[in-house]
Amino acid sequence: MKFRTGSSYTVVIEQARMPSLDIDVVGIGNAIVDVMAPANDAFLTHHGMTKGTMTLVDEDRASAIYSVMGSTVTASGGSAANTIAGIAALGGRTGFIGKIRDDELGAEFRHDITANGTVFRTTPATDGAATARCLILVTPDSQRTMNTFLGASGTLAPEDVDMELVRAARIVYLEGYLYDAPSAQRAFHSASEAAHAARRTVALTLSDPFCVQRHRAAFLELIERHVDVLFANHIELLALFKTEDFDYALERVREIVGIAAITLGADGSVVIAGAETIAVPAAPVEAIVDSTGAGDSYAAGFLFGMTRDASLYDCGRLGSVAASEIIGHFGARPQTDLRALAAQALPDCAITF
Amino acid sequence: MKFRTGSSYTVVIEQARMPSLDIDVVGIGNAIVDVMAPANDAFLTHHGMTKGTMTLVDEDRASAIYSVMGSTVTASGGSAANTIAGIAALGGRTGFIGKIRDDELGAEFRHDITANGTVFRTTPATDGAATARCLILVTPDSQRTMNTFLGASGTLAPEDVDMELVRAARIVYLEGYLYDAPSAQRAFHSASEAAHAARRTVALTLSDPFCVQRHRAAFLELIERHVDVLFANHIELLALFKTEDFDYALERVREIVGIAAITLGADGSVVIAGAETIAVPAAPVEAIVDSTGAGDSYAAGFLFGMTRDASLYDCGRLGSVAASEIIGHFGARPQTDLRALAAQALPDCAITF
Repeated sequence: MKFRTGSSYTVVIEQARMPSLDIDVVGIGNAIVDVMAPANDAFLTHHGMTKGTMTLVDEDRASAIYSVMGSTVTASGGSAANTIAGIAALGGRTGFIGKIRDDELGAEFRHDITANGTVFRTTPATDGAATARCLILVTPDSQRTMNTFLGASGTLAPEDVDMELVRAARIVYLEGYLYDAPSAQRAFHSASEAAHAARRTVALTLSDPFCVQRHRAAFLELIERHVDVLFANHIELLALFKTEDFDYALERVREIVGIAAITLGADGSVVIAGAETIAVPAAPVEAIVDSTGAGDSYAAGFLFGMTRDASLYDCGRLGSVAASEIIGHFGARPQTDLRALAAQALPDCAITF
Repeated sequence: MKFRTGSSYTVVIEQARMPSLDIDVVGIGNAIVDVMAPANDAFLTHHGMTKGTMTLVDEDRASAIYSVMGSTVTASGGSAANTIAGIAALGGRTGFIGKIRDDELGAEFRHDITANGTVFRTTPATDGAATARCLILVTPDSQRTMNTFLGASGTLAPEDVDMELVRAARIVYLEGYLYDAPSAQRAFHSASEAAHAARRTVALTLSDPFCVQRHRAAFLELIERHVDVLFANHIELLALFKTEDFDYALERVREIVGIAAITLGADGSVVIAGAETIAVPAAPVEAIVDSTGAGDSYAAGFLFGMTRDASLYDCGRLGSVAASEIIGHFGARPQTDLRALAAQALPDCAITF
């Protein structure tokens, strides 16, 4: 190192610290690994779980649940991380911010998120809670009952937000689930402010109706102050405005956010943007194998379309195509060549894949 | 402990050392975790892999392959371990003998094999190679290209074979893949001798045509000396007798083993037993999602049938039903209630599930 003195050494450092980042979308969300096993209804009842919901659990409860689960399948998950993986699969340049620990599960998450070229450089925790895991029981009716131990992921703090990455990305995508971690709420606000200061777009997904119920006021404040693009399914949208009236909810969301993409399952999605209301059909699906990650994947297609300056209708159609791929197999990350699939499904789309 | 002296203390020790084991099938095989990711043909070519084959790799090569694989899905595997999981899912009482290390992957394997009630008490290695892993690249044509790092699993030695478990089981099931580990070959012979001394049945699966090519003479010797029930697919059977003539191979296998169950893919299986030749149809499959583990699962149904004293035809049919379940989803271990499925598919079968 003796020879690298003076200005040449400085240059080396500068290059290392400030690589040329050219990112389409950076996601901020839970760095979590999914651990799945089949179970029957009696198992859920016996262990006090409510089918189809996501429950936060502590490490002891997570260990207790794992010890009674059947043979498991493990795969990286996390709502925003799944979306980022989808955007990368479509050919987008991506980054991710989320907190792992320096353990084996954390190494697995890192491998998987970086495997598709995503920039991931959040410093792992070297002590404290283990890497987050979501213990998922899959019942024969294909419903998923989730028990989430947030662990290290829940400790994401404003200082973990890589502002250089945020400023380098055209869109910052925030995962609603992270609102269950108080320090992460602050991280969302500082990331949003930095993004807007750099004239970037801020997108948010509501993640889950119960998550919306837990943080309704805080979400509304975040959306009104910072969010340009909102993703939700229709149940989450109803929860956000505490209403049963979908049309009313659409009008309310139109008032508080520039673009809202509301997914409707088999009925596709509806995109609200100013005075516009755009209905987008779902893409054909041969058989619904597992709907986990459909919303995450829809957001991937939509956001990728935005970074390629596609029309909102084409953004929605890209979302539909990406969601149809995820629904056709187990797991929440793409298993087929999404670029080729999108190019084939949308020959009239203005995007070059 | 002061109070437990004399004969009462002795009784406690005896009970602890010799619990009442009542096992249907004990498997001896690789204790391995599968790590799967999608890949295209160009990836295989670029990394020097031959599609559809299993290659043994060292730890460095395994790390190098993992570092270039896409986002992975992890699940416990191992041919005999999959079979044991299938027998347990059918309601059988099972044991497994295989070597893990005391690392996180080993803990995952232990969780998964014991989750269904299987007795697994092989002492984990506390130093040396890590727990075995099989890095599997899945191409769009659903073929699997496997890179196996045997690690701790390959160190299974005769002293690891829990003779109490072997003597307690009605059937000892040996995995051909273990023949790639020299110490395991000796373990097979000592386990077989102990099983026969206790008037138990010894079964063997040939695992893989290349594995058969690597160990043809040793396999023939093992079969002639020790094996009562042989499992193979037709390609492995041809490899065993170095022939292209299936009928010739059937006659040869009839001479050297009491029962041979040869799987034929969509054509079901043929069971050879003395002068008998029993054709068994395949069970209907809606869509072939992933054929990995079909042979392992067939063996599970067949062996479970044997422990319930079913006819060889019914053993074969149980094998077909169990295989059809595995083929219908990703992964090599059952995801549905195999007992209910078998009871429904085979209402005329003499077994009470």
